[in-house]
Amino acid sequence: MILEVICIGSELLSGITLNSNAHWLAGQIVNAGGRLSRITVVGDELADISSAVKESLARNPYILITTGGLGATYDDMTLEGIAAALGRKTTIDQRAVEMLRKSYARRHLDYELDAVRLKMATIPDGSTPLENMVGSAPAVTAEIGGTRIFCLQGVPSEMQQVFNDHILPTIRKQIGHFVSREVNYQVTGVTEAMIAPALLKIVESNPREAVYLKTHPQGYGENNTPHIRAQVVSRGSDEEKVAKRLEAVTSTLRQEISKLGGKIEP
Amino acid sequence: MILEVICIGSELLSGITLNSNAHWLAGQIVNAGGRLSRITVVGDELADISSAVKESLARNPYILITTGGLGATYDDMTLEGIAAALGRKTTIDQRAVEMLRKSYARRHLDYELDAVRLKMATIPDGSTPLENMVGSAPAVTAEIGGTRIFCLQGVPSEMQQVFNDHILPTIRKQIGHFVSREVNYQVTGVTEAMIAPALLKIVESNPREAVYLKTHPQGYGENNTPHIRAQVVSRGSDEEKVAKRLEAVTSTLRQEISKLGGKIEP
Repeated sequence: MILEVICIGSELLSGITLNSNAHWLAGQIVNAGGRLSRITVVGDELADISSAVKESLARNPYILITTGGLGATYDDMTLEGIAAALGRKTTIDQRAVEMLRKSYARRHLDYELDAVRLKMATIPDGSTPLENMVGSAPAVTAEIGGTRIFCLQGVPSEMQQVFNDHILPTIRKQIGHFVSREVNYQVTGVTEAMIAPALLKIVESNPREAVYLKTHPQGYGENNTPHIRAQVVSRGSDEEKVAKRLEAVTSTLRQEISKLGGKIEP
Repeated sequence: MILEVICIGSELLSGITLNSNAHWLAGQIVNAGGRLSRITVVGDELADISSAVKESLARNPYILITTGGLGATYDDMTLEGIAAALGRKTTIDQRAVEMLRKSYARRHLDYELDAVRLKMATIPDGSTPLENMVGSAPAVTAEIGGTRIFCLQGVPSEMQQVFNDHILPTIRKQIGHFVSREVNYQVTGVTEAMIAPALLKIVESNPREAVYLKTHPQGYGENNTPHIRAQVVSRGSDEEKVAKRLEAVTSTLRQEISKLGGKIEP
């Protein structure tokens, strides 16, 4: 199951905000058994949003998630961008208006639903609002061809609530039970280049979606001893198989590193 | 001057590594007066890398920066991806071989330049290697139509060195002197929705590239008092104009927030 994420917000393109939303989403998706194939970050520009969405839809992911740009300010234009990408209009949605009303009531906020606030209830034709249980602006979902789009908020707590309530169940329903187990090793005395052929052999002898094996160089210690972190991830629906594969891969890795004169811990 | 960044690495799509490289690059680019219009993150897949590069080149940025995938392991395939995007071959480049040799000598590493290590000196035809003063794998640059591509390492210290030595001077040469001044305010008692029309007015009355104005909601305090952070950035080549504009914008912002019954600090 392939997913894509589009993060919308000029603060992500100016070094102001670290894109922790994309990082959080990636972890959640992969742990649930999905595959995130691309993250795109664009600014608060209608044309940029709409072309990023169009391009993603052309790649036909199972789910496309956008984050950010659902608020009331002038630079919140995600839903306009989605509508432009789909060649649809946006209109005030009464279900979304009701959600806004409820969100204010829940927090005892006595706000008038003026034009600025109603912008948060103005969604692309044919889409469905999703309640925001944390803040104000509803999320939005729509089915386009084979892709389900979810437009999530930029505020992390709001985004996470909508992901957990609506997207995670969608992934789970499709994928079912899924296990991901990971072990990290500290390797000394061999470099990435020395270990590369062994890694390739291990990776090629396992199903691609089931085993993830990566080394991260961490510089050199005393006497120029290279340090690397080796990460082994085993994933799948069958708990026993996942455990066995993890054991087999790490055992081969230990042997190969010993052969090269390196040390692996723990 | 428009720039794009493509970050390559499956660890960025699985929640393992937070994309701090993109964040660092964005800050550097914007502070030097460039505009980063898009960040794309793809995994260690030849087809994904090459299509992301092709798509970016079609948008014709002044500079395209890639990060990651220059190492010796099986999943380092950025240069293969670039070559595929350009319809070129890759060959062992003697300048790159010499750089590798020097990088090992500099760190007193007595490594043989075997096939695995020579992979780091195998670059697309018509491109130029750039010395890595921190680690091993050289960076690579090439001119394609109106775009200069720079392929940087994924290790932050190596990437930053190449950016500072080669990309920053390229931006500076084109843009010249550039100043960016920023002030952040704590605003209480008004919401984003309340302040939205005033923000729009301020933004529309200033040159788009010169003033950046954004509010970040931060939840509600005692008695449901809304808290937001307001960020004002003034940018340009003329120091005096930048300062004057910052003053004018913040003064208008203060007035508008007072009118709405809110408080702004400092």
